[in-house]
Amino acid sequence: MAIERLENGPRFCRVLTHNGIAYLAGMTADDLSGDVVQQTKDTLAKVDRYLRIAGTDKSKLLTAVVWLRDIAEFDKMNSAWDEWIDRDGMPVRATVEARLAGDLYRVEIMVTAAI
Amino acid sequence: MAIERLENGPRFCRVLTHNGIAYLAGMTADDLSGDVVQQTKDTLAKVDRYLRIAGTDKSKLLTAVVWLRDIAEFDKMNSAWDEWIDRDGMPVRATVEARLAGDLYRVEIMVTAAI
Amino acid sequence: MAIERLENGPRFCRVLTHNGIAYLAGMTADDLSGDVVQQTKDTLAKVDRYLRIAGTDKSKLLTAVVWLRDIAEFDKMNSAWDEWIDRDGMPVRATVEARLAGDLYRVEIMVTAAI
Repeated sequence: MAIERLENGPRFCRVLTHNGIAYLAGMTADDLSGDVVQQTKDTLAKVDRYLRIAGTDKSKLLTAVVWLRDIAEFDKMNSAWDEWIDRDGMPVRATVEARLAGDLYRVEIMVTAAI
Repeated sequence: MAIERLENGPRFCRVLTHNGIAYLAGMTADDLSGDVVQQTKDTLAKVDRYLRIAGTDKSKLLTAVVWLRDIAEFDKMNSAWDEWIDRDGMPVRATVEARLAGDLYRVEIMVTAAI
Repeated sequence: MAIERLENGPRFCRVLTHNGIAYLAGMTADDLSGDVVQQTKDTLAKVDRYLRIAGTDKSKLLTAVVWLRDIAEFDKMNSAWDEWIDRDGMPVRATVEARLAGDLYRVEIMVTAAI
């Protein structure tokens, strides 16, 4: 079962496929000027792009881990999530607080999906 | 390879199966009045229930991530874990501290299992 | 599809294989006297050892989650990561801050790999 590394960054892969599953790196917003709602929207749009690169889409999500810089922003993150998620294709999910690699990041999301 | 979403919540799936693996969402105790030992017991009982829904059980665990509200409660969490775990069916595991989505949550556990 | 639990610890498995994937527990350095660079090197050497036990190696990595005790040590951790990683075999990765089970741990890394 081959691994297809579809887009490499300098030190990790952004999206790869193996045995019918797409694995995405932890994704963050490109525009860090926004609040957690905007950053979640940006991050999920990026998730869409990488799922497409892997030949799949959000209707086939398997897992999601959401890290929030401030867990008090849980409801705000969810407002963007709820707008985005396909009710027939919801992954299992866990959401916890964590300081993230960049000080301006409010949210990071890592998903897997079936292909 | 079909995805079976066995129980959906309002914004994510609680348990799904795909290609011989059961994926559970991050689970927390229902009764939040207990200490970390009681909450771990409750959470693992919930894990048992969802594994059963997926047609499997704790003897086939693959992975577990444990988030503790206070890593100083590591030994207390483990006392409940040690009572529960099947010594012939132990998953790989990581345990780290994290603030969780509800202020009373002491522990959250996310697992996968073979079916 | 059989699960092979290749090395059990007292309460979780350190490495197991299932359906063509090797799952490793969250790994930490054995020598905790070192700084984050040294601990990352030690941890990644341990990852190599457990991948070998599972019949694979770092060229087939699928996923990595890196927890740092202090996210300010992100660049230092990466200096050891960059030295270690196989540029043709990079996994998807997420790195977040978390307090870890031992007070001296600076880094914990959990990976999966194809076999």
